[in-house]
Amino acid sequence: MMDQIQVFVTGGTFDKEYNFITGDLFFKDTHLPEMFVRGRSTLDIDVKTLMMVDSLEMTDADREIILHTCRRNTSNKILITHGTDSMVKTAKFLAGAHVQGKTIVLTGAMVPYAFGTSSDGFFNLGSALAFVQMLEPGVYVAMNGRYFNWNQVRKNRKTGFFESMEEE
Amino acid sequence: MMDQIQVFVTGGTFDKEYNFITGDLFFKDTHLPEMFVRGRSTLDIDVKTLMMVDSLEMTDADREIILHTCRRNTSNKILITHGTDSMVKTAKFLAGAHVQGKTIVLTGAMVPYAFGTSSDGFFNLGSALAFVQMLEPGVYVAMNGRYFNWNQVRKNRKTGFFESMEEE
Amino acid sequence: MMDQIQVFVTGGTFDKEYNFITGDLFFKDTHLPEMFVRGRSTLDIDVKTLMMVDSLEMTDADREIILHTCRRNTSNKILITHGTDSMVKTAKFLAGAHVQGKTIVLTGAMVPYAFGTSSDGFFNLGSALAFVQMLEPGVYVAMNGRYFNWNQVRKNRKTGFFESMEEE
Amino acid sequence: MMDQIQVFVTGGTFDKEYNFITGDLFFKDTHLPEMFVRGRSTLDIDVKTLMMVDSLEMTDADREIILHTCRRNTSNKILITHGTDSMVKTAKFLAGAHVQGKTIVLTGAMVPYAFGTSSDGFFNLGSALAFVQMLEPGVYVAMNGRYFNWNQVRKNRKTGFFESMEEE
Repeated sequence: MMDQIQVFVTGGTFDKEYNFITGDLFFKDTHLPEMFVRGRSTLDIDVKTLMMVDSLEMTDADREIILHTCRRNTSNKILITHGTDSMVKTAKFLAGAHVQGKTIVLTGAMVPYAFGTSSDGFFNLGSALAFVQMLEPGVYVAMNGRYFNWNQVRKNRKTGFFESMEEE
Repeated sequence: MMDQIQVFVTGGTFDKEYNFITGDLFFKDTHLPEMFVRGRSTLDIDVKTLMMVDSLEMTDADREIILHTCRRNTSNKILITHGTDSMVKTAKFLAGAHVQGKTIVLTGAMVPYAFGTSSDGFFNLGSALAFVQMLEPGVYVAMNGRYFNWNQVRKNRKTGFFESMEEE
Repeated sequence: MMDQIQVFVTGGTFDKEYNFITGDLFFKDTHLPEMFVRGRSTLDIDVKTLMMVDSLEMTDADREIILHTCRRNTSNKILITHGTDSMVKTAKFLAGAHVQGKTIVLTGAMVPYAFGTSSDGFFNLGSALAFVQMLEPGVYVAMNGRYFNWNQVRKNRKTGFFESMEEE
Repeated sequence: MMDQIQVFVTGGTFDKEYNFITGDLFFKDTHLPEMFVRGRSTLDIDVKTLMMVDSLEMTDADREIILHTCRRNTSNKILITHGTDSMVKTAKFLAGAHVQGKTIVLTGAMVPYAFGTSSDGFFNLGSALAFVQMLEPGVYVAMNGRYFNWNQVRKNRKTGFFESMEEE
């Protein structure tokens, strides 16, 4: 009997689209459900869109919504898609609230899933989904094929890679 | 300090290409290295191609080569790309040989990676890579977003999904 | 006031799909309508599927259907998607029937449109659509960025390119 | 004996890339040569990059370079890739200079070619390539599956479609 995995969508580069009129990036609908179909997932997954925001514009009020929804949700395995720029900040926010007994994994993408064969999103989703099934309760970031504890990771803004702060 | 992950390529649908002259599928070079770059992996990964075969044509001699190479390899985390049709058979073969202290994860794809936005390969690679980092020593199959112990899985030929034999 | 362009779909590699259960290619629905949307065409185009066959299996009865439908159709600009292997044969068949006052252009693809960024289909459709608007009444093949008169072209089975028989 | 077709690259959305560090679009190398290979073109085509600019930033000095290069070039069939926002302006500029005996076709894309299966670029290239072979000397815009005379076209900024000014 499998546990249900709860996926919360918050936006980020992962779900951005190209607006061919203005040349800007914007949000329409999330690609998550179609990605699980394409990945031929047979897991019991529920997808809910909490918001569609660029993570540079995510406010603490948004983070309260995410936290509140994680707390109320009955699943103990939660995957959150999130913009990479403030992913670590949100991970810290959630960890600081001491949600008990839940494994929370944040993931995202450096290139929008909609941009085809250059996007890392589908790979990241696969790895984050595996990590959320395997990790002990706690808050984690899954990027670059790895997972990081919320308090041992930072995004290198110059390279776009997530780095473990243990390594230094 | 991260452990090196050893990837062994054996072919399968994962790495098939379309021959536009004959209309058949065939093997050229593996896509694995470019997939890790696209996935922006920062893991220490070594990729070696052992063979490029359709798994329906994989022989026990081929399986001996895989086993022998797994044994000799110094890494204790091994990811094998493999055709789906005999993936479970190879998993059993490796498990029967009692390779000690190594986590061996087999993965594959139902649609070739080269066929673009319909392939499950990139997602499967992400999840298999996460599972090989997390699982105890043993032999596993990673497909459909899940992992299966070698002795509790079968491929449903009609649906193309891998099923846990515990579930029945 | 634009003339309507009639598109007749007959199948061919252009519209093939990959069957992930059997590993074979097969036909489902044509991709033509979605291709015109993606190409942002503002032409007055009507798409009708006459058949979905591999051109190696196209019979003279099939060709009679194509001819009959071209004759009855009121448009004088007709674009036919067709498998490449017998495209020249069908072009000759249609030319031999002396359909008066109509420009008929056959096109196809060497790699299925559904196989993503390796397919030539979308490019061929764009060029064929331009040629059908510009050419005098007659029967033509549009492949490899060029058009060929029905009686001056052959497919080179070894290279997959269409060659003008004037060039020799 | 085929005439050589000269392709001049000037940038535009056609050749833009996504910068995953900044989230902006930028120019690297042109995709034109790989597109002709993928389109399996057997035409005699020479590709030269004149500049890589967003067409909103194209100056009259840039247009002088394009004009000068068209004049000096020995080919009488010239295809120019160009951003869509000032494509009509450049077409007028070239037409005003009365280049004699040359067919000049401008084309572009609403979605970058690098963004995969949502881009119109590959289709537009196919149609523009056909039109440049067929049209009388003059200056034209090829977009939306159609060609327009330089003095009978405008881009509708709200819809992103090119419209014939005859139609009103």
